[in-house]
Amino acid sequence: MQVLRTHTCGELGRLHIGKEATLCGWVDSYRDHGGGLFIDLRDRYGMTQVVFNPPDTPPAIIEESKSLRAEYVVQVIGRVAERPSGMANPKLSTGEIELRVTGFKLLNKSQTPPVSPNANAQDLPNEELRLEHRYLDLRRAVMQKTLMLRDRIVKGMRDYFAELDFIDVETPILGRSTPEGARDYLVPSRISRGAFYALPQSPQLYKQILMMAGYDRYVQVARCFRDEDLRADRQPEFTQLDLEMSFVDADDVMGVIDGLVAKLAKQELGLDVKLPLPRMTYDEAMERFGHDAPDLRFGLELVDCTDLAAKSDFRVFSSVAASGGRVRAINAKLGTEHYSRRGIDALTEYVAAFGAKGLAWFRVEEDGSLSSTIAKNFTPELLKEFGIRLKAEPGDLLLFVADEWKVTCKALHALRSKIGAEMKLYDPRAMHFSWVVEFPMFDFDDEEKRWVAMHHPFTSPRDQDFDLLKGDPGKCRAKAYDLVINGSEAGGGTIRIHDPGIQQTVFSLLGIDEHTAEQRFGFLLRALGYGAPPHGGIALGIDRWVMLFAGLDNIRDCIAFPKTQRASDLMTGAPGEVESKQLKELGIRIER
Amino acid sequence: MQVLRTHTCGELGRLHIGKEATLCGWVDSYRDHGGGLFIDLRDRYGMTQVVFNPPDTPPAIIEESKSLRAEYVVQVIGRVAERPSGMANPKLSTGEIELRVTGFKLLNKSQTPPVSPNANAQDLPNEELRLEHRYLDLRRAVMQKTLMLRDRIVKGMRDYFAELDFIDVETPILGRSTPEGARDYLVPSRISRGAFYALPQSPQLYKQILMMAGYDRYVQVARCFRDEDLRADRQPEFTQLDLEMSFVDADDVMGVIDGLVAKLAKQELGLDVKLPLPRMTYDEAMERFGHDAPDLRFGLELVDCTDLAAKSDFRVFSSVAASGGRVRAINAKLGTEHYSRRGIDALTEYVAAFGAKGLAWFRVEEDGSLSSTIAKNFTPELLKEFGIRLKAEPGDLLLFVADEWKVTCKALHALRSKIGAEMKLYDPRAMHFSWVVEFPMFDFDDEEKRWVAMHHPFTSPRDQDFDLLKGDPGKCRAKAYDLVINGSEAGGGTIRIHDPGIQQTVFSLLGIDEHTAEQRFGFLLRALGYGAPPHGGIALGIDRWVMLFAGLDNIRDCIAFPKTQRASDLMTGAPGEVESKQLKELGIRIER
Repeated sequence: MQVLRTHTCGELGRLHIGKEATLCGWVDSYRDHGGGLFIDLRDRYGMTQVVFNPPDTPPAIIEESKSLRAEYVVQVIGRVAERPSGMANPKLSTGEIELRVTGFKLLNKSQTPPVSPNANAQDLPNEELRLEHRYLDLRRAVMQKTLMLRDRIVKGMRDYFAELDFIDVETPILGRSTPEGARDYLVPSRISRGAFYALPQSPQLYKQILMMAGYDRYVQVARCFRDEDLRADRQPEFTQLDLEMSFVDADDVMGVIDGLVAKLAKQELGLDVKLPLPRMTYDEAMERFGHDAPDLRFGLELVDCTDLAAKSDFRVFSSVAASGGRVRAINAKLGTEHYSRRGIDALTEYVAAFGAKGLAWFRVEEDGSLSSTIAKNFTPELLKEFGIRLKAEPGDLLLFVADEWKVTCKALHALRSKIGAEMKLYDPRAMHFSWVVEFPMFDFDDEEKRWVAMHHPFTSPRDQDFDLLKGDPGKCRAKAYDLVINGSEAGGGTIRIHDPGIQQTVFSLLGIDEHTAEQRFGFLLRALGYGAPPHGGIALGIDRWVMLFAGLDNIRDCIAFPKTQRASDLMTGAPGEVESKQLKELGIRIER
Repeated sequence: MQVLRTHTCGELGRLHIGKEATLCGWVDSYRDHGGGLFIDLRDRYGMTQVVFNPPDTPPAIIEESKSLRAEYVVQVIGRVAERPSGMANPKLSTGEIELRVTGFKLLNKSQTPPVSPNANAQDLPNEELRLEHRYLDLRRAVMQKTLMLRDRIVKGMRDYFAELDFIDVETPILGRSTPEGARDYLVPSRISRGAFYALPQSPQLYKQILMMAGYDRYVQVARCFRDEDLRADRQPEFTQLDLEMSFVDADDVMGVIDGLVAKLAKQELGLDVKLPLPRMTYDEAMERFGHDAPDLRFGLELVDCTDLAAKSDFRVFSSVAASGGRVRAINAKLGTEHYSRRGIDALTEYVAAFGAKGLAWFRVEEDGSLSSTIAKNFTPELLKEFGIRLKAEPGDLLLFVADEWKVTCKALHALRSKIGAEMKLYDPRAMHFSWVVEFPMFDFDDEEKRWVAMHHPFTSPRDQDFDLLKGDPGKCRAKAYDLVINGSEAGGGTIRIHDPGIQQTVFSLLGIDEHTAEQRFGFLLRALGYGAPPHGGIALGIDRWVMLFAGLDNIRDCIAFPKTQRASDLMTGAPGEVESKQLKELGIRIER
């Protein structure tokens, strides 16, 4: 029942042959064949070949059609015809037919586009130009495919949670600043001079309030904001699937997300994911992979050799072992083929960026013996022990970092990722989903000399760890769980504290005194006093899910109108100057 | 598969009798019956009667249960039993059973709530206290019902548009200030000192860009922001169902919304709405009802009597008619019964607030003659003509306003609404949906002595009115359409300009010079130059839809965490003070 067209450009096929149709779209390409013109007419749904040729097309229209150029917008009326034999295009859903034009209207012209919607990847201009002309960049098939994937993922999530009786509740964007964690974006209030709203870093407190208000299961696709210095995969505003459940423990929340993963992996990737998803504690993840979001698409696990290192005459090893540090290694199977001496030097330089002071290595020779420039510092028996520990076989490359525990984690995690990619240890299109659970409650901030919350201050300790809160906070483990996809944290959640007393204890451990707690979280503390249910939840990073599901590596390609790393929108020019009248009304002044 | 409960409080019924169940919830009420305790256990899903009584309940638990108070949170394990005969409660889905407790755990205590979740409407504390303790207020059944209705309305909208191939695209919250229309909320940028983002008043420009980018059909449930002095039914942040379509005319957009109205009216109200929804031009609406969003649940239409008034000796009438004003009337059928002389005085006072200098009236007597204190200024023949014009019958009350056209519209619209309500001319639960179309393009701002856009500067004139743009802008009508529900504007949209030349013409008519246009809308103008399709859309006010569908009259009752009319959140205290360090980082200072 549409006024301007009868069909889309992806719709006509054999069964329309002989019928009349009206299409609207963009000239994707055009070919002048002397007597007439062929255009590929494009819209979101597909492409249809449109033919301006006598005798179907009146001469005046053929004449007019000659002025058509790429990206002109046209309406064409015509008869659907079978393409001449041998001219069918099996790649197109409309590839068997063409529209022979009888009527025509030019709807709009286009200047020559600086970003060509049908350019190949290698012909694309730089990202700045693409972002500046986002209306053209968004016409590219890959962008449209990604945004449609995003639409389906979000719709799939919403439908899934609606089925499970979750209620979608909108929480405010104009909130209150709680300077715990990242930096807030602030919004000056005109009515309350000198006061500010803050944009939410997450709907955390509101969703907990909703549980205390009895909503039982809450879900929202929530926009969140962080005014941080941006890394490549961060945006000042980002979107999370945010949920919270009452009367649950960690297993319930993970179980619900397991089902979501299975649904979307099937829907979008055709994968049958086995449930429950594998779970690993934080301690195990750090021990085996040096990282709390390990990429489980491949092995290359970390192996502790501190006990062996302690027995060596190699001072770097023995002194680290003696001073409470760790000597850990990975065995790059058949790595000697891949890494020459120069290759190993490059790896050494690489791990230096992660704090490692060096990279010790051994090659495993044909006879199984270990060779290295440092081999002379080890007895043959000890070398044999190393070989056994690391399951060394001829051709393997053994790589060691000796340092404080944290440094060995960082450096070996980075090394493992690099070698995994370089030696192609996994299919880049493979998808691996898993959980990391039981994170530490607290992390000791060496600079500020105080405990900080590893997740956030509302996270509940494990029941068996309540006593550790006062005794040994560093050992205290949380009811926390992170969803990991291919080595990326794709979501994280916790069971929250629902007991006002425990909440106070955690606040004081974090150095948040009663006055500050009242000022920042007073309403939450009060709400806890009126019958708060046990509750917990999770947030999933939608931008990242889309990136992982699309197999892309630039988060800006997963967002319709992203910001640059300088947090600006190159198309609109935001942020921009405002009129002094606006600032005056707000009662603020710019410091020069 | 839940850890803490096997069922919700709304789930157990006859078919569970004899089975064991574990419930969690809030103590809604409790009755101590000597030997034991009855509690109504509540959650979002319902209420279940829970009985602590020997011999099922161990003595220790009975003892413990005696400390239970309202809003305590408990977990109870027990056996489902049929209620003793005569004790069933047919109002509850769980009314035939009770849970006889065998196991019990107190999950949390509650202080005495200052807002009682099961209070009757008349026992509710004032709104300020409710908003301050929103976590308690949101436990009330009516709030939960409204937010669940909201969830279903939004889900229903999303599903409807997904079916129709609309793609949900998120547009930025951190945008660019375009000081056309309402006042923007601003967000200072830390990275670009002195520059500001603005929160969107609507995704207008982004959705037009999406059409130019070929997305064809876009939809979003979008948060929008306006820093205005708030009226009772306005919020600083509000939610709209925002959509845009390519290659469409007004009929297409209205047709799509017609289908949505029919779906939701059926789903939520059980109504069969006849489609297409009635349409009326702006000119007709103003003529018949004095308002562009007329309440069509009742008649009481405005009738023009200027020609008759011109013939009278009543100076108020004749002078207004002579000076180009209007004399218009409504006939309140059988209104003489309802309005005594004092009642009419009250109406006169009421219309004065809308600028009317007076309210002339006639009663229609038993014999059909018109009587009034001003009757002597009219010949009997003329009075008869008035009677015929207004279809006067005995008992009717005829009410006249003589003034400039605008004043007669305002005053008589207000009068019509008041009389309609007071005389109960409609069922307050009735729902009437209609369209008002073809609004003027421009409104002349008498203060600023210039044309302003009636909708926004991107609205297309009707094709036949292009020439009026330059000749007589006041007569130019737009491709604009408003959805009206029960006299409220529930949505509004337009077909947009897709021709860069016409866009420039409209800008210059609005006094937006080339430089300003470039600065504010440069990217849109540029995008128009690269093949923009004809397009148009609409935005529906979701907060208001919920209010109308729920039959409520306070918009704050339709929003989980609303702001007051001073734009503050009484629960969190937003907006609040921030630390001077935060302002310093942003490079702004508060003016004292």
